[in-house]
Amino acid sequence: MRAAIFNGPGSITVGERPDAAIREPTDAVVRVVLACVCGSDLWYYRGETPFEPGPIGHEFIGVVEDVGGDVHSVKRGDFVISPFAFSDGTCPHCRHGITTACIHGGFFPTGNGDGGQGEAVRVPLADGTLVQVPGSGHSEETMASLLALSDVMGTGQHAAVCARVNDGDTVAVVGDGAVGLCGVLAAKRLGAQRIIALSGHEDRERLAREFGATDIVEARGAEPVAAVLELTDALGVDAALECVGTGQAMDTALGVARPGSTVGYVGVPHGVVLPVQEMFYANTGVQGGPAPARAYLPELLEDVREGRINPGRVFDFETDLDGIAEAYAAMDERRAIKSLIRVGSL
Amino acid sequence: MRAAIFNGPGSITVGERPDAAIREPTDAVVRVVLACVCGSDLWYYRGETPFEPGPIGHEFIGVVEDVGGDVHSVKRGDFVISPFAFSDGTCPHCRHGITTACIHGGFFPTGNGDGGQGEAVRVPLADGTLVQVPGSGHSEETMASLLALSDVMGTGQHAAVCARVNDGDTVAVVGDGAVGLCGVLAAKRLGAQRIIALSGHEDRERLAREFGATDIVEARGAEPVAAVLELTDALGVDAALECVGTGQAMDTALGVARPGSTVGYVGVPHGVVLPVQEMFYANTGVQGGPAPARAYLPELLEDVREGRINPGRVFDFETDLDGIAEAYAAMDERRAIKSLIRVGSL
Repeated sequence: MRAAIFNGPGSITVGERPDAAIREPTDAVVRVVLACVCGSDLWYYRGETPFEPGPIGHEFIGVVEDVGGDVHSVKRGDFVISPFAFSDGTCPHCRHGITTACIHGGFFPTGNGDGGQGEAVRVPLADGTLVQVPGSGHSEETMASLLALSDVMGTGQHAAVCARVNDGDTVAVVGDGAVGLCGVLAAKRLGAQRIIALSGHEDRERLAREFGATDIVEARGAEPVAAVLELTDALGVDAALECVGTGQAMDTALGVARPGSTVGYVGVPHGVVLPVQEMFYANTGVQGGPAPARAYLPELLEDVREGRINPGRVFDFETDLDGIAEAYAAMDERRAIKSLIRVGSL
Repeated sequence: MRAAIFNGPGSITVGERPDAAIREPTDAVVRVVLACVCGSDLWYYRGETPFEPGPIGHEFIGVVEDVGGDVHSVKRGDFVISPFAFSDGTCPHCRHGITTACIHGGFFPTGNGDGGQGEAVRVPLADGTLVQVPGSGHSEETMASLLALSDVMGTGQHAAVCARVNDGDTVAVVGDGAVGLCGVLAAKRLGAQRIIALSGHEDRERLAREFGATDIVEARGAEPVAAVLELTDALGVDAALECVGTGQAMDTALGVARPGSTVGYVGVPHGVVLPVQEMFYANTGVQGGPAPARAYLPELLEDVREGRINPGRVFDFETDLDGIAEAYAAMDERRAIKSLIRVGSL
């Protein structure tokens, strides 16, 4: 089968790989319909974190092609969403909703196995991992939103949940990438009344407003903290979402969080130093990590199916598997918010 | 009036100070009945944090001696508890329950004014700060527990609240000082089913068990993390309370916290470095700071009056104002968990 291959920083090609196949009775094989590129893929693409050359990608939706003998919740032909991590759904961590800490789970690509950016993927622990999408005849817009549930929307949701966004809250979202935009959407669906999005790009500002942002603050430099404080009568916000992963983004989020509030952070930390003394005296907390996208899938899927959220709007670049290199380049150069890859058809 | 004076590390004496007096119409003057020494007082006593020579102490209960013209909630003769920080009770931070971030508030000792370890204290923002204790004829035991509400019990409560202790939880408490012991009590009253106390002293273990600890783990060295994990089937606890303030205590608390849980921390951080990468991948958060003891006072006061909690049990050393130096020394040398100072009578 054909799949995207990471050769080293800046180099992504399409190559031949062994066909995805059942290895364990709890596996399923999913033929990929849509895949996409994650902001976290850019860390190794840019050479900022080490990554083994080989198959890549972890966000995909598709059709079940085969299942092992112990798989009971999905069957051949089902249209499914795979979250970016697999999990059994039954271990204590899964039952606490942290499926990304599943005792038997793991992340795509699976070791030297399949990544999400290819024609098919072996999905371990299929019963716990895959979520079947009911219905048929999904619009292009719905398909894109279903794809967003594999990671980016669940990650925005995790930021908002970790930041404990509540009804009526004033929320700040640091980061206007796809995750930050989904953080705006998540804050809105959790009842935030006022959402201050920090942005530096007109097109992203438009989407942030469409997703529910009520205020936009220019994101660059040291000014955003002052600007957010000015908007909140110097009090700070009830919840801050840090959706970048840099030290500057974390400093900004902590700088605008009011005493007693929590910064929800979901960007893989790069150069983040938590200022524990300042946090202590301000009574501000931090909580975050790899999003348990699987745990959020049922409620988010229902919202997408009912048309209440449309996170697929973050995709503003489309290509096919052969265009994968350009899909990365467009995001790397910030020409695209997020790239969608059309791999197969339903 | 007479008051304890900090002369420099290791040197506490009793000296003459100007009488506490009304300066603002929102002030009250409280004649101190009982005061005590805080674990945080030991930081400057030991020379580990700078502190200006002068009056000291911030935990006291007593009788209102005088009120300014704008004070309406307490009157001369009322028996009151003062939390260790004063606050107006009306600013947005107070309304959010973080009275230690009150926009108009502050901490005792008030500038070069009165500390809590003296015959009387000017209490700013008396309406927001002081809580009247109903009834009379309080037993010695109740008096000690009322004194504990000025700081240590509220601080243990804050650790448990920040750690989000819930009904049925398994909780670990790091620190067997007075705050840690009150953390055990707070976890118990918030519904924890299993409370693992880390301790290294037999007398403190006894009190921990009396307060609700179900398991005791030897606190020294690198072993406690392994021991707690063994007690929890390698899962970790649902909530961890860090009640010391050292790097080792924080590492232990983070090491035993299960994915998705939060370390509530209330010890002033000394040498704490938050390992953001490990926290991220474990989905563990931290939240804490100076406890809004005032916000917790009404519910804790009711629990003390109804006999449901008896945090005054942490006092195992008593003296009068003239014995203040020994009160510090006993805690410094860990001969005492917490020292109570009898200053006046009701």
